[in-house]
Amino acid sequence: MLRRNPTLSRLKGGYLFPEIEKRTQAFLKCNPDAKLISLGIGDTTLPLPPLIAEAMARKALELATVQGYRGYGPEEGLQELREAIAHTLYGDSFSFEEIFISDGAGSDIGRLQAFLGGGLKVALQDPVYPVFLDGSLIFDAQEVRFLPCLPENNFFPDLSRAQGCDVLYFCSPNNPTGAALSYEEMKELISFAHRNRSLIVFDAAYVPFVQRSGFPRSIYDVEGASEVAIEVNSFSKLVGFTGVRLGWTVVPKALSYRGGEKIHADWRRFIQTFFNGASRLAQAGGLAALTPLGRAASQKNMTYYLKNAALLKEGLQKVVARVYGGEHSPYLWAHFPKKKAWDLFEEFLTQFHLVTIPGSGFGPSGEEFLRLSAFGSRDSVREARARFDR
Amino acid sequence: MLRRNPTLSRLKGGYLFPEIEKRTQAFLKCNPDAKLISLGIGDTTLPLPPLIAEAMARKALELATVQGYRGYGPEEGLQELREAIAHTLYGDSFSFEEIFISDGAGSDIGRLQAFLGGGLKVALQDPVYPVFLDGSLIFDAQEVRFLPCLPENNFFPDLSRAQGCDVLYFCSPNNPTGAALSYEEMKELISFAHRNRSLIVFDAAYVPFVQRSGFPRSIYDVEGASEVAIEVNSFSKLVGFTGVRLGWTVVPKALSYRGGEKIHADWRRFIQTFFNGASRLAQAGGLAALTPLGRAASQKNMTYYLKNAALLKEGLQKVVARVYGGEHSPYLWAHFPKKKAWDLFEEFLTQFHLVTIPGSGFGPSGEEFLRLSAFGSRDSVREARARFDR
Repeated sequence: MLRRNPTLSRLKGGYLFPEIEKRTQAFLKCNPDAKLISLGIGDTTLPLPPLIAEAMARKALELATVQGYRGYGPEEGLQELREAIAHTLYGDSFSFEEIFISDGAGSDIGRLQAFLGGGLKVALQDPVYPVFLDGSLIFDAQEVRFLPCLPENNFFPDLSRAQGCDVLYFCSPNNPTGAALSYEEMKELISFAHRNRSLIVFDAAYVPFVQRSGFPRSIYDVEGASEVAIEVNSFSKLVGFTGVRLGWTVVPKALSYRGGEKIHADWRRFIQTFFNGASRLAQAGGLAALTPLGRAASQKNMTYYLKNAALLKEGLQKVVARVYGGEHSPYLWAHFPKKKAWDLFEEFLTQFHLVTIPGSGFGPSGEEFLRLSAFGSRDSVREARARFDR
Repeated sequence: MLRRNPTLSRLKGGYLFPEIEKRTQAFLKCNPDAKLISLGIGDTTLPLPPLIAEAMARKALELATVQGYRGYGPEEGLQELREAIAHTLYGDSFSFEEIFISDGAGSDIGRLQAFLGGGLKVALQDPVYPVFLDGSLIFDAQEVRFLPCLPENNFFPDLSRAQGCDVLYFCSPNNPTGAALSYEEMKELISFAHRNRSLIVFDAAYVPFVQRSGFPRSIYDVEGASEVAIEVNSFSKLVGFTGVRLGWTVVPKALSYRGGEKIHADWRRFIQTFFNGASRLAQAGGLAALTPLGRAASQKNMTYYLKNAALLKEGLQKVVARVYGGEHSPYLWAHFPKKKAWDLFEEFLTQFHLVTIPGSGFGPSGEEFLRLSAFGSRDSVREARARFDR
């Protein structure tokens, strides 16, 4: 008879976001008139750029015609979209075969973890997006090492702690700290992976927020990365596709395991078996997003959210001295030394009627922090800022 | 340094469908003028019903408006769609919380296997859709037992062979044999699962093809199923969503593990961690598909494909005596005693210029069989049928 998968018991009780939802609902029950503003879940709020929505609408209608109907697409994604990504975002330094279209970065990170299998030693930035830790536990990592990223080390960890690890998960610009790796830091990371013979799984979902020079927009901007790194990416933040669901993962052909076998061929096989491709509608939208007009619309959204972040930061600095992030990222990472994250969460909820995320949800080094998201509308951000003045 | 996930080496070299594609391309290279007809991959060809396409197009355009934009949906799917499925397809015998929206049955079966974890004893119908076997191997089943389904046993296996198995994978109407479980057979299966304390993972993707009474349209049509079965289902065949990507999985709250813990809570946690929801566009289409007009359009498509199957069967019977399936299923399962499946594949390719699927791709008991799909257009099916006359 079926026993419970023993790795499930390694997970903490509540997944972060549902727990926040629960506490928020409990607060609302006692305070039904409170006008809560959510600065919590990092979800886009700007409408889709019309040209992208129209491309998807056209594709939907085309699928209702005899000439235009198509069924299953290739599991790895439409060649046209894979080529457009290779060309537009990677300057053709990869062939289309190295780009795999997914239904989003979060899902594909889980698939990667399932694919890499159990018994691994993994290293995580601490704090970081929870799926890295949960996936490592569910897919039976032998050891999980946290690499603290704190103001003291400018949010770049001491890599020597990852000595002997098989896989390093990195996210830059980081969710939640908002810190972006500089060229020098990325070089150090890649050179460590070469020396240590580790695989880097690099989450680049927030790269569209990198606006200043001096910061790479892909791990492959640094030499040697294609021999040690898989890059997971997404249209979610790029063009507001959090509900449309589209992403991609770069698995370079240059990557190999310890025994010399190629990772690319295995990943292809895995995807062909366990994934049936992203929606054709979403893929049509992805193609439109990569046209010059689509990219301009995306840039406009990034500017909007970064302006939000700057406004919110200004306000927040009135109640707390140390606020990080917001420069290359829609996230602010506010430091309250000696305080507990869930207490801070409750404080912001009751005092300012703001829903935030307790930093401890992202790892032990987030204990004294709150994450605030600048993805809201300009009006709600202004209103949130005003609440800090009271 | 990263070693190759040892479970990957348990897989056979080529996944079935890519191997067929390779051989077909090789044939075309030597015979560039051959007018091949594909009766291979089970992919829908009828255009989407317009009302469903229009619902998706409207949703896309709505996402481009300030009022209509929505980001992430619930990972488990939109409540409205979950309720519509519970009501329309299960007569409200489940609450919406027991229905989980997915991006398709194939992907969700893989997720289920990842979720159930390694070390299990599993039993598979033989032949059956390849993901059941491949997933069992990759997710480290301790033992895989094949339950032969052959003309001799009317394609219903001897269940005593599954004694002691933790999980039984069943698909009805079966892909590839086309055989549908009768009420009596399904009762036997469920009663076995109760006695043996096994979990049944039931793939119901082809249920829309069940047209005659006497055959259940869900495993839950038989009493006691909700304590032992998970049903995986799909809009792919129902309304031609193979490229749109939408499915659902029923995980009843009545299901428990050996230790008494509830499976439902774990699955919810797993989905919330590793899946970000199906595309909102696809979900809008799913809602339209469940309206009375959507269901009528779906029924029209089923009738069309079943007519195709009947025509193709007539033709096929001119070259082979024993043809099964086609009654509750778009698949014909042709038996050529003493022949080898890949030889039959080559024979049909060179002699009739028809692409089929060698039965051995679905399991050892498919060795003397070919699967032919009736998903083509009426014209191509007529043309294929005519080729058997020559």
